[in-house]
Amino acid sequence: MCKTVCMVILINPFLVPPAKIDDAIAMWEKARDFLSSQPGYISTALHRARDEQAQFLLINVARWESEDAFYSASKRMREEAGLQPVEGVTSAPALYSIIRV
Amino acid sequence: MCKTVCMVILINPFLVPPAKIDDAIAMWEKARDFLSSQPGYISTALHRARDEQAQFLLINVARWESEDAFYSASKRMREEAGLQPVEGVTSAPALYSIIRV
Repeated sequence: MCKTVCMVILINPFLVPPAKIDDAIAMWEKARDFLSSQPGYISTALHRARDEQAQFLLINVARWESEDAFYSASKRMREEAGLQPVEGVTSAPALYSIIRV
Repeated sequence: MCKTVCMVILINPFLVPPAKIDDAIAMWEKARDFLSSQPGYISTALHRARDEQAQFLLINVARWESEDAFYSASKRMREEAGLQPVEGVTSAPALYSIIRV
């Protein structure tokens, strides 16, 4: 347990065809429901672009206690949650640390 | 003044050639120093990918009191701050609202 020292931030920009936005949000909710029950989860927030012309219509920002916690939870989700990808939706998840404020 | 109701979130993923990361961070610091003095600014945080293979090595997440405050401050920065772009660095800034947690 090291929320202050070891916290990592997942940022996941989603490329979403506008017609698929509701499906993508519903998919995100299912993933959140699974991941938020996993060890090391701290919080998450789904961001929606205010302008439909934005490159990434959705961006997820989540906090995890460690890299291992996130990767373990993601692996369990892939193996156990049975989530189906939404056609045409792609994402570029990566883990970040805050280096400047 | 409506930090709770009207707050908007700027998320700006940067495509950064690895050799340019220090220049990009220095540029971000100059932009932050200008923008943080502007009306409507709330906070900012520069996120660095923990893995150099990530698509976006830097992502900025900032909070502003309104869209107008952000656009006005950005216009002033372009006109007054004299910041020079870093060669090879591109970004995709957009404004977001949190729709799910």
